[in-house]
This record gives sequence, structure tokens and C-alpha cells, in this order.
Amino acid sequence: MKLTALIMAGGRGERFWPVSRERCPKQFLSLTGDGETLIQKTVRRLLPLVSPEDIYLATNAAYLDLIAAQLPELPPENILTEPCARNTAPCICLAAGIFRRKYGDAAMLVLPADHLIREEALFLESLRCAVKAAETGRLVTLGIHPACPETGYGYLHCASEESPCNVTQFLEKPPFETAQALVESGEWLWNSGIFVWTLSAVTEALRLHLPALYDALSPAADAWETPDFAPYLAKIYPSLPSVSIDCGVMEKAENICAVPCRFRWDDVGSWRAIERIGDADTQGNCLQGDVVTVDSTGCTVSGQEKLIAVLGLQEVVIVDTPDALLVCSKQSTQDIRKLLAALRPHHCSVL
Amino acid sequence: MKLTALIMAGGRGERFWPVSRERCPKQFLSLTGDGETLIQKTVRRLLPLVSPEDIYLATNAAYLDLIAAQLPELPPENILTEPCARNTAPCICLAAGIFRRKYGDAAMLVLPADHLIREEALFLESLRCAVKAAETGRLVTLGIHPACPETGYGYLHCASEESPCNVTQFLEKPPFETAQALVESGEWLWNSGIFVWTLSAVTEALRLHLPALYDALSPAADAWETPDFAPYLAKIYPSLPSVSIDCGVMEKAENICAVPCRFRWDDVGSWRAIERIGDADTQGNCLQGDVVTVDSTGCTVSGQEKLIAVLGLQEVVIVDTPDALLVCSKQSTQDIRKLLAALRPHHCSVL
Repeated sequence: MKLTALIMAGGRGERFWPVSRERCPKQFLSLTGDGETLIQKTVRRLLPLVSPEDIYLATNAAYLDLIAAQLPELPPENILTEPCARNTAPCICLAAGIFRRKYGDAAMLVLPADHLIREEALFLESLRCAVKAAETGRLVTLGIHPACPETGYGYLHCASEESPCNVTQFLEKPPFETAQALVESGEWLWNSGIFVWTLSAVTEALRLHLPALYDALSPAADAWETPDFAPYLAKIYPSLPSVSIDCGVMEKAENICAVPCRFRWDDVGSWRAIERIGDADTQGNCLQGDVVTVDSTGCTVSGQEKLIAVLGLQEVVIVDTPDALLVCSKQSTQDIRKLLAALRPHHCSVL
Repeated sequence: MKLTALIMAGGRGERFWPVSRERCPKQFLSLTGDGETLIQKTVRRLLPLVSPEDIYLATNAAYLDLIAAQLPELPPENILTEPCARNTAPCICLAAGIFRRKYGDAAMLVLPADHLIREEALFLESLRCAVKAAETGRLVTLGIHPACPETGYGYLHCASEESPCNVTQFLEKPPFETAQALVESGEWLWNSGIFVWTLSAVTEALRLHLPALYDALSPAADAWETPDFAPYLAKIYPSLPSVSIDCGVMEKAENICAVPCRFRWDDVGSWRAIERIGDADTQGNCLQGDVVTVDSTGCTVSGQEKLIAVLGLQEVVIVDTPDALLVCSKQSTQDIRKLLAALRPHHCSVL
């Protein structure tokens, strides 16, 4: 079966402020320091399986120039511009409709643009396995063997040790004690947010579980590549509910399975990711730039030319950029949105 | 009796790094933001009591240009240049010898250049009181009614409620619980490090309690204003013991008294001083520059033009300068010297 891919690249990367900015969010940055941005990695990883002309990007208009500059190999007509952010379900529903018009039936990979995957060969192997499972009509998600009781992820309960295995329960962002129990049980996987399904299966699931959304977006898909497409989308999109594919479809559907994956994966969801991605020193500090630490443990510091001296601190994140400096406790990294809201009135130039 | 003054201005202000630097330590900075430096304040405060030609400064050669620029009213010959730092006793011993040659007997005020005093009229009143006590031959220190159980200060035990009162015990930097008990007893004062004595009394005390030091420095005083002075001092000074006047004389002498003072005083000894000097917001944060805080309490932030965003932090000090950023816990502000030692090998340009 033909393989197509939708890469969702509309995120604003707020929790990586001040390195990630509204005008250039984290998927367009090289957080790993190797010069390749997260979205470039995401596309390159797919190329052994999917041709560039079958890879689509969903994003918003502000990022079209960045995409053209970073991904010249993608046909410009494969960029789907969302009029506004409405989470993943509307975006997937729109893309699936467009793909059906173009391909009839096909396997559809759905991937966020900003995830980090270490072992790319294992990733491709898992994708092939997932495609095979999808071809039987199931909705497949890549499940990651949890490396730690991370509280920021969703968890999938797998009824058996088979691969793929049926998913019997979703649990989103559990508290720490719960996460610990899930990890210890050996029966739960992290939900990677990377999905594989056939166009017919996902269309059927959307029509069943999100019928209003499906009905609203079907005319848009029908108008794809006509002058009516953009005006219709601009009219209808803001009125759509903001709903994730996990909540809207995956948690309701019966035919869900997961392919357990062994590659190291990170959603790079907050500054805490740096301690998972980067190399920590013997005190557990992850340091980038000209940084000196004394009596400090578990700190993540991202600097540039300026010397950053850290003294007597535990579990603090320090991010210095030319026009804004962030200093925050590690346990507050999920609250950066709250900080950005506080900055918006008088500091919008640094957002 | 004639009044003379020695201002000790050789300190390196290390604990105020990175604002205070070796080339321009804190006594030459306006930490209060009013444009007047600490040493300028120290001299100006004395002028109602002491003429400029009777005010001497002890410092090191590196600061001669700063002193000339900031204190043009002082005669250049009143600047005593120490060849190296040897704490307060050698400096006071040398100055007392020089003063005796010039003035015969006189009252001598000794003051650090970098203390902050709020109520200047009360300060002058206390000094007048101290001079009177000194004229009876006693060694007088200004004692400050303690505002809190500060662990970084020395404490004086006063036997009575008289003013001046005899000092029966010195206690240097007690642990917090002890400091609490001292403050609650009402019998202890902070040792301000501001002293008043006659030249005859302090000379007698130095000869009695630090005889080797006294003997080594007498020839230097005799050579004052001759070509032999500088070479002799350069030869002898490095071999002198580094000893404070508190340890070397005050804790041993019998004729010590304190004038209890009511003015608010701060030795500006570390970044913690800013919370005592500055105005805190309702969350106990002292903020200078373009700073936004969220979910943060008790933080001291000193920035410049760049936005500093602080999230989810308690009791942290953040000091941003163009070439160095310090982030440290409040309880580590006394350990900045340890940090500077770590910086010296590879970052001496920012010291």
C-alpha cells in the first residue's frame, strides 16, 4: 500500500522560550546543536519510507518562509496552511480528506515535527511494523517503552506482550506516584503521538467519533486545489472545536493498537528535555555555552558567549539569549506559558 | 581634641561580583542607585566633623585613579598605598604612626569605605559621643542595635545599658540559633567596624597586643614623606601577619567600650544586603532592571536593559552584567569567593 505522511508543524514551542520564539518555534531550531533542525530531522527520517512528494506539512502561515528555507525538497503545494490552531484532530481530518481525494486509499503516517528520535533504524523498523498493522484496518500508535515515570506524557495500557498489541486504556499525564506504578507494571507504554492508519480507517473513525468536525471539513477537502479552498477553510476553521486526535478518536475507538518501540524518543516538551537529550556532568548539570558551576546539581544551563556562573543551586534552568534571560525551577518548566502570559502586555517583542 | 579619620578602602568587594570587579570594587560603585558611590558617601558623612585635609585613605595602588576621580577634595598625599592586603591591624598601625608624627595626639576615627548608613544625623551624634569616650583613653567601637539575627556579623556583649558601655565579650559570626538568642537577650550589639580612639591609646594597645607588628611598622611611620617610606613599606609589608584589629587588639584589650547606635547600618557584605537596603515587592523580591517574576518569592535580581524572567524560584540571587551572569542561592552568597577561585584559571578577564 502506498505510504503518505502528514507532519504537524504548527506548534508554537512556548515552553522552550526564550530560545523558541513565536516567529521561530522549536521545530525550526537545532536544539541538539548539530545544525539540523527538528523538522529537518523529522522529514529526513521518513525519506527511506516515503517520497518527498507524498510528505505533507500542516502549519500556519507565519512559518511558510521558514519551511521553504529549511525544507526545499518538499513541493510547496504539500504545505497545508491552517488559518488558526485547533489542535490535532481538525488538522488530521482535513489532511485525511485531501489525501483521500488524491490517493484513494493509502497508509497515512502522522508525526509531530518536533520530536527527537535517537535510533533511526529502529524507528523505521517500527514504522514498517505499524504500517502492516494499519493495513488490517486498525488505528496504530507507536508506543515507547518508558524510560522513567515521566508525568508529562500520555500512557497506553497494552493488554498483551504481542507486537502490535491492543490498547485497552489511555491515561494522560498521570501524577508521579501513578506514573511510577505504570512504569513498574511493565504493561504501559508512553504514547508517542506518532500514528499510522489507512485513510479509510481514520476517515471512518473520524466520521463515527467526531461527526460534526468531519462534516465541516469534508467540503474543504473537496475544494482542495480550487480557489474555494482557502476562503472556505478561513471561514470554517475558527469555528471548529480545539480537540486532539487522542481525546477525540483514539480514546473512544475500539480498534486501537500500539507497536512497542525500543528507540529512545523525546517529545522535547520543555526545558527538562535537555537533561534527557544532553550529556550531564557528574553533578547532573547539562551545560551549553560558557558555564561554570560550583556547589550546584541538576541544573540545565543554555548560554551563549557570556559567562554564566552558577553557585549553590539545585534543579534550576537558566536560558540566556541576547534579549531575554529565563531563570526558573525545573518543576516550573511546564508553567512557562503562565510566564509568557505575564510578559505579553509589556514585553511582546521578546515573545 | 583634633579629629582625624582613616578610611579603609582596599577591599576587593568580591562578594558583590559580578557587579563589583577587582578593577572597580564595590566601594567605588553606587549600589543604592543614587549616583553617589559608597566611598563618596563615607567621606561626605564625615565632613561636618573632620576637615578633608585630616581624612586619610588606605588603599592599594590599583585604586589610586578611582580615588582621584571620585574624591578630588582629598589631598593626594593623604592616600596611603598598601603594597598588599594584610587586613585591618597593619593598616591602622601604620596610619596611627603617621598621624602621631603629624598631629602629636589626636582622636582618630577608623571607618570602612563601603558601609551604608541611613540616618546621617544620628551617625554624627554617635560619633561625637564616641569621640568623648575616646578622650578618656578608651578604645571605642560603634555598636549597632541588631535588626535581625544576622549570622555574617560580629556581636559585642555590653555589660550595662549605659552609653558608652563596657564591652565584655566579642562573638564573631555566630550560628543562626546563637544569633537569635543574642538578639533576644537585648545585651548584644552588632560590631560595626567603625572605631574611635586617641592616637596615644591605640598606639599603646598596638604596642601591648601586637608588639612585633608595632615594631615592624614604626620605622615606616618615621620615614613618612621621605624617599625611604615606599621602599621600606614594600619590603616589610608582605612579611606582616594578616590580622584584623578586632582579633589583634579589641578582643584582647580591657579598655573597650561601645556606643550603642540607633541609625540603620549595613556592611553591604553580600548580595543579601540588597534585600535589606532595597525595597522589596509584596513577594519579597528586590528587583532592579527589566524584571518579570511569576510564582517567585524572596529573589534579588539586578539586571540592566535585557529582560529577566523569573519563574517558580525562591530565595535566588540573579545578577546580570554585559559579560557575566551570576545565578546563586541566597544562602550561597557568602561563597562567591569560592566561585571566583573556580573562575580564576580560565575566566580572569571577568574577575
